[in-house]
Amino acid sequence: MLKTFKIILAYDGTNYFGWQKQIEHVTIEGEIIKACKKLFTNEALVLGSSRTDSGVHALGQVVAIKVDTNIPVRKIAHALNAHLPEDIVVQSAEEVEEGFHPRYYAVEKTYVYRIYNAKMPLPQHMRYSAHFYEPLDLQLMRQACSYFIGTHDFFAFSSAGGSVKTSIRTIYQCSMDELNGLIEITMRGDGFLYNMVRIIVGTLIDVGTKKIRAEDIPAIFESRDRLKSGKKAPAQGLTLVEIKY
Amino acid sequence: MLKTFKIILAYDGTNYFGWQKQIEHVTIEGEIIKACKKLFTNEALVLGSSRTDSGVHALGQVVAIKVDTNIPVRKIAHALNAHLPEDIVVQSAEEVEEGFHPRYYAVEKTYVYRIYNAKMPLPQHMRYSAHFYEPLDLQLMRQACSYFIGTHDFFAFSSAGGSVKTSIRTIYQCSMDELNGLIEITMRGDGFLYNMVRIIVGTLIDVGTKKIRAEDIPAIFESRDRLKSGKKAPAQGLTLVEIKY
Repeated sequence: MLKTFKIILAYDGTNYFGWQKQIEHVTIEGEIIKACKKLFTNEALVLGSSRTDSGVHALGQVVAIKVDTNIPVRKIAHALNAHLPEDIVVQSAEEVEEGFHPRYYAVEKTYVYRIYNAKMPLPQHMRYSAHFYEPLDLQLMRQACSYFIGTHDFFAFSSAGGSVKTSIRTIYQCSMDELNGLIEITMRGDGFLYNMVRIIVGTLIDVGTKKIRAEDIPAIFESRDRLKSGKKAPAQGLTLVEIKY
Repeated sequence: MLKTFKIILAYDGTNYFGWQKQIEHVTIEGEIIKACKKLFTNEALVLGSSRTDSGVHALGQVVAIKVDTNIPVRKIAHALNAHLPEDIVVQSAEEVEEGFHPRYYAVEKTYVYRIYNAKMPLPQHMRYSAHFYEPLDLQLMRQACSYFIGTHDFFAFSSAGGSVKTSIRTIYQCSMDELNGLIEITMRGDGFLYNMVRIIVGTLIDVGTKKIRAEDIPAIFESRDRLKSGKKAPAQGLTLVEIKY
């Protein structure tokens, strides 16, 4: 019988060329498809919610798989994990309605970006944060965060290559925590453009080093000019935390 | 001119056979000695404070190196890091008196042990915690922690193979934090016997699964019987956090 499962997926993106299936490279989607082929009788339909880039991590990627199986839902997660590598782990699985689409049905996504701000790198932070040795002014960065909250045209804070109709998005949360040099930037919104979190973080870093003033951010929005925002921050600092439906 | 430097060292122990130099295996001490040989003119004397086991991590291992060099102290950390692999990083260096011995002069050490208690493992926690899927009773474990605080004969909570005269140690702190399934056990004391933290953690796990009762711990101390305490918890959960002088 054809069933649709909603899968919550966690992965360490270090060794993968991102989510999307590629012929020549190892990707997360590719590994899921491989595991499905071993486990299920028909060709499985696999749909991911976020096409995370090469090196980006996830705690709560959402994947729909449509498969012909008699495996009971409570065994699906363990069954898939048995065929997945150690750095990709299904956290849970539930059966959902046939038409469920993890991307179109999503109403809110949360990302965390980690910067380790210290003179020397720390091996324990290397995989899941970007090391930045120049001291960052956290107060200025917090001030800058507040400019990103709300509904804006984020065109200047995105890379070309996305396939969306509008560059207007609503950000509900853009906040910063810091402990022992580890800065955590949390961004929660109704959706994100291609590279948007990493470009906003790059802009926050420019504010923290006084290359950009926090109060100049509204003018950058208005300019719709990618050259006015900061550099794209490195992939390994980014984690897709949660997707809500 | 012969100088002695006190080095604070952080490392990810995953890929090493522990601290102590071995002829056939890659060790942290071995890497430090190699880096010193490249950097300094004479045979360097390298002394570590804690002989961390294979797979154990450190944020604040303390190492003394006695070398003949004109490199100014403010450049020592960067100079050593240039010759060390990415997963071993000198955090800081200072010049100290000639007789400084990182083991004998230490007055307090802090270790953290991390357990990830959840049905499914999380790739992001794999390197620095031990996964335990059976639910743990944190309240019982917290109660058990309090029995380890104070001055006790820890013979029953240590492995053979240490080279110390007495098994009496004083523990100042044994506490537990938990967030989203990640349990952090912090132990601070005047010194630790061979495998002591990992055996105490194994005992705490037995308390959390109701194999051992918290109130039986005093009797285990008294028995001096290694067979009465818990199993040694896995190496990757353990981190040497700080050493005080």
